Parts: sequence; C-alpha cells; structure tokens
Amino acid sequence: MRPSDFTPRFSKTEASFCPFCPGSEDATPPELLALRAPDAPADVGRWTVRAFPNRFPALRVEGELERTAEGPYDRVSGIGAHEVIVETVRHDETLADLGLPALGEVLWAWRERILDLGRDLRLAHVQIFKNHGPEAGATILHEHSQVIALPVVPRDVALEREEQQAWFGRKERCLTCDIVRHERRDGERLVFENARYAVLCPWAPLSPFVLWIVPKGHSSHFEAIERHELESLAEALRLALRKLDKALERPAYNFALHSGPLRGAASPSLHWRLEVAPTLTVPGGFERGTGSWLNSTPPEEAAAFLRKVRE
Amino acid sequence: MRPSDFTPRFSKTEASFCPFCPGSEDATPPELLALRAPDAPADVGRWTVRAFPNRFPALRVEGELERTAEGPYDRVSGIGAHEVIVETVRHDETLADLGLPALGEVLWAWRERILDLGRDLRLAHVQIFKNHGPEAGATILHEHSQVIALPVVPRDVALEREEQQAWFGRKERCLTCDIVRHERRDGERLVFENARYAVLCPWAPLSPFVLWIVPKGHSSHFEAIERHELESLAEALRLALRKLDKALERPAYNFALHSGPLRGAASPSLHWRLEVAPTLTVPGGFERGTGSWLNSTPPEEAAAFLRKVRE
Repeated sequence: MRPSDFTPRFSKTEASFCPFCPGSEDATPPELLALRAPDAPADVGRWTVRAFPNRFPALRVEGELERTAEGPYDRVSGIGAHEVIVETVRHDETLADLGLPALGEVLWAWRERILDLGRDLRLAHVQIFKNHGPEAGATILHEHSQVIALPVVPRDVALEREEQQAWFGRKERCLTCDIVRHERRDGERLVFENARYAVLCPWAPLSPFVLWIVPKGHSSHFEAIERHELESLAEALRLALRKLDKALERPAYNFALHSGPLRGAASPSLHWRLEVAPTLTVPGGFERGTGSWLNSTPPEEAAAFLRKVRE
Repeated sequence: MRPSDFTPRFSKTEASFCPFCPGSEDATPPELLALRAPDAPADVGRWTVRAFPNRFPALRVEGELERTAEGPYDRVSGIGAHEVIVETVRHDETLADLGLPALGEVLWAWRERILDLGRDLRLAHVQIFKNHGPEAGATILHEHSQVIALPVVPRDVALEREEQQAWFGRKERCLTCDIVRHERRDGERLVFENARYAVLCPWAPLSPFVLWIVPKGHSSHFEAIERHELESLAEALRLALRKLDKALERPAYNFALHSGPLRGAASPSLHWRLEVAPTLTVPGGFERGTGSWLNSTPPEEAAAFLRKVRE
C-alpha cells in the first residue's frame, strides 16, 4: 500500500484504449445484456446499450451470504453485484446527446437489470446510479451508468421509505404525490413537465441545482415502467441534462434512482424518482459531521435559471 | 447568477492578501475571542488563537426564530452562528506543526465557543469542524476551524444519539465505551493511545483512513474537558494529523466533533469523539443515493499502515 494508491482523486483517467468501445468487448467480463435501439443506424455494431459485470466490483455474486457478529459489530459478507451499463457505442457521446429511442433503451436496460437481479433472493436492494465526469467519481469517461446490488437495504433508503410510509399512515396520501401536486400548482420550483413526468428543483436540496425527475401519476417502482412510457421519460431526462449542460457549462454530475423495495408489490405510499445532482460543491467537515449540507443556491433560483436556459 | 458562481470547486483560492494573518484584524468582523498560548514567543503578536464571525455566514444571529409551514414543507429561519477560529498566527503553519500548548489553546477555544453559543437558547446544536485544503472545501488556506450553530439538531446527529441511547437502553453500558474497550483489547484498528485518549480506525468507515480521537474514560460532552486534559488530547490529535501527513503525503482532510446535546447534562449513553477524514475519494451517485459509501481500504489495513509510519 503506497500513498499513490489513494490519490486518483482529481486525475483525469482516460487511456488511449477504451474498454467500453465497440470492438473491445473482450476487455470486459461476459455480457449480461445487449440492447439495440430501434432507430440505430446500421453502422453502429450489434448493440447500442450493453451491460456486464464491473471488472473491479465492490461486491460479488459468488459465495455464501453470512451474517456474523464481531465484538460489538455486525458483519455481512460482500455478496451482491456491481455492473456497468454502457449507454452508447460512441466514445464521445453523452447521455444528453442521445436520441430519445436510444435513451429509452438505456432506461429499459435499468429495468431489465433490476428485474434480473431481483431473482437472486439473497439481494435486498439494487441501486442504479451514474457518475459523469471525473469530479463526480467517473474513472472511465465513455458514458455509462452503474448498478450495485446489496444484501442489505442501505440506511438512507430505509429512512426515506419510513418517512413516506409515516406520511401515508397519517394522511392516507402519498407524500411524493403531494409534493408533485404542490410544485405543479406553485410553479416556483418546476422546470418542465410533459404528459407523464415532471422535472423540478426539490425543496431544501443538499446541493445546488439538484433535480428530480418524477412520474406525475403515482408509481412506486421504476421497474414497473412500460415500453410506451420510455420516450416520455427519456424526454424529461434529456431535457434536464441539456439544461444543466447549458446552465453550468457541462458540469460533472451524479444521479441515483430512488425506487420501491426490490421484489416489492406496488405500494400506495412509495413513489419512485430519479435524482440528478451536478458536482458543484465539496462536502466538508460540516456535511460529514451532521448529514446536513450547506447550500447557498435556493431551489427557486435554480429552477428560474433552468426554465430560462434553452436546452 | 452566472455559471462561474458555482465553479470555485477545484480552484486554489489563495490571494496575496490573507485576512487571517496578524495585522489584518480589521479585515474580519469584530473578534469574539482571542487566546494566547502560555509558551507563545514574544514576537507573535497579541493572540495565538482568534475567533470571529464568518464574513459570509451560512446563518446569522440577528432576527427572529420562526418555524413556518409552506405547502407540505417545514421552514425554519436561518438563525444561528457561523464563526471562524484562526488556529495560528503563522500563515504557512498547519495544525500538525503546532506545539502542544498552542494546540491545546485551539481546543480550549472550541470549548469556549460552544459554552458561549449555548447561552443563546434559540440554538439547538453547535458543530465544530474543519476543512483543511481546497479539496476538503477550504477557501482560505490560513489554518482555521469553523463553528456553525443551528436552531435545529441535524438528522445524522440525532440518529447517532438515538443509536447510542438504544444500546444503553438494552445493555446499560455506553456503546462507545464498549467500542473503545474492544479496540484496545483487539488492537487491530488501534493506532495510538496515551493516558486519556485513543486514536483508532473505526469499524466500517465511510472512506479510507477515517480516524477517531476519543476519550478512553466515559465523557459525553467535549466542552466538559478540563485545562489539565488539553495537552493529552493535543498530543493524540497532533499524532493523528502527523501520521496522516506522512502516510498520505499531506492530504486535504475534514474533521467534525461529535459531542452531546448543547446545554445537556452529562449523559451515561453518549460519548464524544473527534472524527478526522482525509479527502481521498469523491462521494458519487451510489453514496448520494444510499448514504452508504464504498470504501476499498479496510480500517485494519489503514491502522496497520498508520502504526508503522513515524509521525
């Protein structure tokens, strides 16, 4: 172990060889899924979206799931999955550049991986997320999202669901439906809506320019999405990314899918959303100590700015 | 609002003029506290540690504390305090360079500010923290810690206390005392101990090389520290920082004080600690979505490495 083992932080890691480009399929572990956009031109190879296990996984499918005590601590074995979903065949293309049918295939790939991983009953949670740009944690710049499946439900995921369930328990209404209704009526934090989805700057975000992409109708599980809804969601996501690109000069960003429990039945209290967060600030000692983040950009200002910029 | 308003992130912000240097006292808001180390040489001016309000505060003392509802949301007015504690008169000196009596004065200044802010009954929490280096969020490089006082108890602070209280409720023993006892006996994650304090790599840390500096005897509130304990704590903190400097080539880092409730009586279940975290990784989409962090450096490896390096 040398200090250099811990200092990849701000280095732009892009080799001349890209393992995610078509023709390099041998350089990745065996393929889990390959999709082809209906409008893909003949010259882009045999896939437009491709999923495979991460070569340096945080968790592995192989082995026994064991839960053990160690002194005052709890340990669970690192059973799970860590996958990469390459979102385009073109090395320099971003998610915001994709055509709507091609972006729809990326969303469909998320659904497919969630449903497939859910068949492994040892797994308790599947997290879909993306790190775009080195400042957001990307180490390979060819556009991709990631999937991590865990044998436990992470704390913040459980807490968020508890809050939504507590709200429903008191009011017999979905908290997120209440929020979406309020934001559509109020308009101050709303950025965009089409027939099915709203893009909004949420109340009290952790950091500047956080965006929610959320179904306007009630839906607890992302993976319940139907083929005919893909293009509408792709439109909302692409618009959000293009507006961020214009407003903030192509920022690094992360997104994370918040969805209902794996293998869970449709729930009246939970409501899925995709949360996009450009990387504009560094969490410091205050954020690490309290879990609260200082944010000097009110969501109303961010939304007004994003409504104005043309995507 | 322009894109450049949100892009100070990785720029090294150090002007030729430093408002924290002696002689620039006029450039800061009026002083709240000035301490002088007992061993300070005559040539270092009239203070060695100096506290004053942040010129660009996240919260302000002035105004009425109001809690209001806004649609489905809760709002509380930004009443509080945001202060800077300059830790040395020397522009280029780091906390790890200080003599133990001088470092002891820094710790004493934390205590003084917590006790003073606790007199304002509108305030519910005082967070002592530090951002060292631009990658850790520092915008002025002259060494300083910060104080933020809030009208609410932040979520993670409340959750941590609830966990400690639940453990005590079941076992009638302090969780942190159990941890410290286990780590001192086990030794694998222990880095250092003197008569009063232990330095250890905690179980399941969010990121590589996180360190706890924790009293070995039970103590719920940092601000209950006595003058004669300062040098022992300063020794533990300085050793931790010097070992990190050697092991990781002077990394940027954050620390945050975890202590009992403001104005609270001594508690048998709560136990204060200082948590130091070098900035080696970026939280990405997975971390933002789940609150769980991927960490590829086990604390046992970090502790073994830190025990070996000479501070």
